[in-house]
Amino acid sequence: MSLRVALSPAGLDPGTLDRQAVLMIDVFRASTTIVTALANGARAVIPVADKGEAGRLAATLDRDMSVMAGERGGQQLAGFALGNSPRSFTPEVVRGRTVVLTTTNGTAALVKARGAERLAVGALANATAATAFLAQALDDGLDVTLLCAGWEGHVALEDTLCAGLFVDRLASHPRATPTDDGARIASSLYRGAQADLARVLFVADHSKRLIEVGAGDDLSDCARIDVSDVLPVLRDSRIVAA
Amino acid sequence: MSLRVALSPAGLDPGTLDRQAVLMIDVFRASTTIVTALANGARAVIPVADKGEAGRLAATLDRDMSVMAGERGGQQLAGFALGNSPRSFTPEVVRGRTVVLTTTNGTAALVKARGAERLAVGALANATAATAFLAQALDDGLDVTLLCAGWEGHVALEDTLCAGLFVDRLASHPRATPTDDGARIASSLYRGAQADLARVLFVADHSKRLIEVGAGDDLSDCARIDVSDVLPVLRDSRIVAA
Repeated sequence: MSLRVALSPAGLDPGTLDRQAVLMIDVFRASTTIVTALANGARAVIPVADKGEAGRLAATLDRDMSVMAGERGGQQLAGFALGNSPRSFTPEVVRGRTVVLTTTNGTAALVKARGAERLAVGALANATAATAFLAQALDDGLDVTLLCAGWEGHVALEDTLCAGLFVDRLASHPRATPTDDGARIASSLYRGAQADLARVLFVADHSKRLIEVGAGDDLSDCARIDVSDVLPVLRDSRIVAA
Repeated sequence: MSLRVALSPAGLDPGTLDRQAVLMIDVFRASTTIVTALANGARAVIPVADKGEAGRLAATLDRDMSVMAGERGGQQLAGFALGNSPRSFTPEVVRGRTVVLTTTNGTAALVKARGAERLAVGALANATAATAFLAQALDDGLDVTLLCAGWEGHVALEDTLCAGLFVDRLASHPRATPTDDGARIASSLYRGAQADLARVLFVADHSKRLIEVGAGDDLSDCARIDVSDVLPVLRDSRIVAA
């Protein structure tokens, strides 16, 4: 049994997914967006890797019962009803509907990990629920990987910090060791930052990018810890509340 | 100008290499091995990505004036005179000779970065010389990337720590900011570990791997800081002492 942190999707070992519970982490913003959408009553979120696939999927769904959300480089894609800002996934917009979501990093990471034995979505927003998912997987004898979405193949400070928070919360779990270097790095980063987590989050590259594209308000939403007990899990290619 | 840390070769942007000074870091062991080989009088080290290329290159070199070194998975490759243990690159073996070197991670990282405007090799062993290389590049207006070799696509604790040491030593350089998330993570890791660097290095995944293959003695060699003032640099496809 192992507890590993892949600091970007490049670090995920696809050959071992059938023995793995994977928690995908994309704090800014896909993970937080998915938690928010399900908390606000969306029936499901379907993650798709590219725009074309989103369009083909939309054609098969009831228009009134679905919402298209697309983002690249931080900005809403043309022709999509929503972008990737958690605050636009309000109950009025998503309740009872299926959200088709394609984002720069988070949905690509989900698609890469979809062969996992169990796959869930973690953020600061649902930290306790996500930690419980991880603890249960360890209890059940599965290997666990925290999969940081990062930014276009690069590590992202906010995802690494969030992974470190999960490693820290699992520290007393008897099956949470040994961890790998990714887990050691994430855990060390979190321990150094926890006294002033928001400040550290807001110096991240991704924070600057979001501020530049006018999405700075999302940062404080995404930095809030434990505001939801929703655990998004993948079931039959759809992400639903567990 | 920027100071970035790619925590694995996946994080290197190949499109910007012509404006970059890259310092490749593979603490366990290729960087330390290259520094040691040049310090002990090797004329040059030629990094090659695969075994076949090493063989083809060897056929073009004077046998008495060259040494073949090859390692995969921590162990010496069959048919090679040396593996990747710094302590086998003694003056008796390497003085005046050209070393052809292929290793699991370090030489692959060097090959990926060989289009860089400037390319050098850094380790704890030559920390001051490597830092001077970085400072000079920043003075000259180049972007700087610290390229951690990692382990088969994964981040490695020891390379991240060493990169963090370099970021820390450059902290007062007027052109060393802004950095990226990789640099922030490496720097934070180093600051948390610097009081007991050896202990942290020796819990790394790679340490365990080396101990398993009987190369544990190399760890303490690779953990020594500033034992050499050699700066290995790439010149005409060969790594030579600057």
